[in-house]
Amino acid sequence: MRRNILIIEIPEFDESVAGLAKQRQYQLAKPYGSLGRLETISCKVAGITQSFCPPLLRRAIVVFAADNGVFAEGITPIGQEITALQSLNMLQGRAGVGVLAKQAQSKLMVVDVGMIADMNHPELICKKIRHGTCNIAQGAAMSREECMEAIQIGLDIAKQCSDEGIAMIGVGEMGVGNTTTSSAVASVLLQKDPAAVTGQGAGLNKGQYKNKLDVIRRAVEVNAPDAEDPLDVLQKVGGFDLAAMVGCILGAASHRMVVVIDGFISICTALVAQRINSRVTSYLILSHRSAELGYDLIANELEMTPLLDLQMRLGEGSGCALAFSIIDDAMAILNNMATFEEAKIASKDVADNWDQPTPE
Amino acid sequence: MRRNILIIEIPEFDESVAGLAKQRQYQLAKPYGSLGRLETISCKVAGITQSFCPPLLRRAIVVFAADNGVFAEGITPIGQEITALQSLNMLQGRAGVGVLAKQAQSKLMVVDVGMIADMNHPELICKKIRHGTCNIAQGAAMSREECMEAIQIGLDIAKQCSDEGIAMIGVGEMGVGNTTTSSAVASVLLQKDPAAVTGQGAGLNKGQYKNKLDVIRRAVEVNAPDAEDPLDVLQKVGGFDLAAMVGCILGAASHRMVVVIDGFISICTALVAQRINSRVTSYLILSHRSAELGYDLIANELEMTPLLDLQMRLGEGSGCALAFSIIDDAMAILNNMATFEEAKIASKDVADNWDQPTPE
Repeated sequence: MRRNILIIEIPEFDESVAGLAKQRQYQLAKPYGSLGRLETISCKVAGITQSFCPPLLRRAIVVFAADNGVFAEGITPIGQEITALQSLNMLQGRAGVGVLAKQAQSKLMVVDVGMIADMNHPELICKKIRHGTCNIAQGAAMSREECMEAIQIGLDIAKQCSDEGIAMIGVGEMGVGNTTTSSAVASVLLQKDPAAVTGQGAGLNKGQYKNKLDVIRRAVEVNAPDAEDPLDVLQKVGGFDLAAMVGCILGAASHRMVVVIDGFISICTALVAQRINSRVTSYLILSHRSAELGYDLIANELEMTPLLDLQMRLGEGSGCALAFSIIDDAMAILNNMATFEEAKIASKDVADNWDQPTPE
Repeated sequence: MRRNILIIEIPEFDESVAGLAKQRQYQLAKPYGSLGRLETISCKVAGITQSFCPPLLRRAIVVFAADNGVFAEGITPIGQEITALQSLNMLQGRAGVGVLAKQAQSKLMVVDVGMIADMNHPELICKKIRHGTCNIAQGAAMSREECMEAIQIGLDIAKQCSDEGIAMIGVGEMGVGNTTTSSAVASVLLQKDPAAVTGQGAGLNKGQYKNKLDVIRRAVEVNAPDAEDPLDVLQKVGGFDLAAMVGCILGAASHRMVVVIDGFISICTALVAQRINSRVTSYLILSHRSAELGYDLIANELEMTPLLDLQMRLGEGSGCALAFSIIDDAMAILNNMATFEEAKIASKDVADNWDQPTPE
């Protein structure tokens, strides 16, 4: 009964508070539904946070950084030193996610869960499990114990954020080679050929792409992970970064936080989290449609539609920051728009016989 | 030669400055193209403003408010008093666009170009041409002179904004009945049956929708506007709000401002502007895909893709405010991200052999 080792209690989404928000959306001086997803998102946030009109949500983007042993298979043209270099750039606010987090008034946390380099930066959160995972093309990425440890790191970070009053968390990553591990995880969980869920990552030519597919196929063959056991999949063909992200997503949901998913790697970890506890999806918002191949398949599996489609594929958590602004706008509408009564408009004047927006 | 009465000089889009921005995007520490439309938008803004790394763009949303005589045909269930009531709500910051403009740190200007009500509010810009247009189902909405006057109001507002240092302008509207006039204008300019470009507006049932189509068909028949003469179309089946918006779009482009288009009505006026001077499209950014039927057809005609798709259909300029935030994020990336050199990353490390993003 290995699959029962991890038990995360996630509270039920609060339909009654979401319903109150929906009622208020009806009362606001506009045709009902005319603000589309700004309306449905605000109701979802109300149901998650159990707050009818929450004020500005305190937010953080958490970047889990780790290296991946599968790098040895030449699955990326990027140097492995980039994991640490970009983590440093993030802490200095000058990587993509750093710039965008600042725009969205978001705290940015970088957590070392297994980088090869031993970085010294006062703001780096050091939770290193080991200097990189093993090569999944040759065996399991990590032991079961290490996998649980990585998940626990994510759970702890989520709890720490919740204790600090953070109500909205974006889940990002930095780890050279982690589109390879993510595709491996997704292909097993969805029982699809790797080609359906493998993109070009940070940039591959055709030959390199073919090699990446071969490596993923070998990893799945060598490890034979149990598709019914998400932890087994994570342990064998995942990575420290992915496992910690899964923990963070589950932990954030358990604390009734809004969990904002970034791109391809982030949505792969959301899929793992959903397989561990399907209730988690009520707490997720997909920030943007990643340009990476395979994203749509997973979004479909989760029955969710991303908020944005800007053809982005940077990762890091960059999409979360953009979604934060849209979520802020949605909450501002719920909180600050005049009702029909306040606007002195008879609500019958504004017809609402359009199709209602699909709930989030 | 009536169609030559209006001559608006629009400068050429500055490809060289846009090219400098593109070069910088290549140097930023990320795989080229990985920030998708954030990259292409930043290059477009650089080319429009002729500023390589412009600081935060000062911005305004301008709402042109007017009433439409075609209201008499029962084309909307909304009361005509809503035009003035919502304009007041906007000025008080509590209509949808008011709330969202505040979120985006945008000035909001409301210009009365022809409301029935005589509103007194210290911040209302009074440029009333007449108390509402004539009923387009029975004759021309306005005289040629009035049409030129409305366009001039828009041109003047754009100039005033430019003089104030505003570099980005959102074009919104408030006018009960103006989805009817917009659909009439679009159906003539695109030479399509009204059913292809007519949606449910602020909320119609099937019978009301059929009536709206009949009214538009009658308006086109009675007025027989010349599809080759955009001013003739605007004058005969448009409205004061639409004509002023056309002027504002053209004027803003002539002053090298970034022109952000809102939803269906706003894109209809962008189409008119494009037919008057096709160079205008280099200055346009479509904020969001309106849920109103006909939007896609016009976006295709302009060969442009909206930034967002949040199933919104409120109008007012509400979508412009959301796009402002995305544009801010795009410019922050261009300005504030580290280059490969600054990040101490060898740029050859980060492959860029992906397809490049399509230029905006």
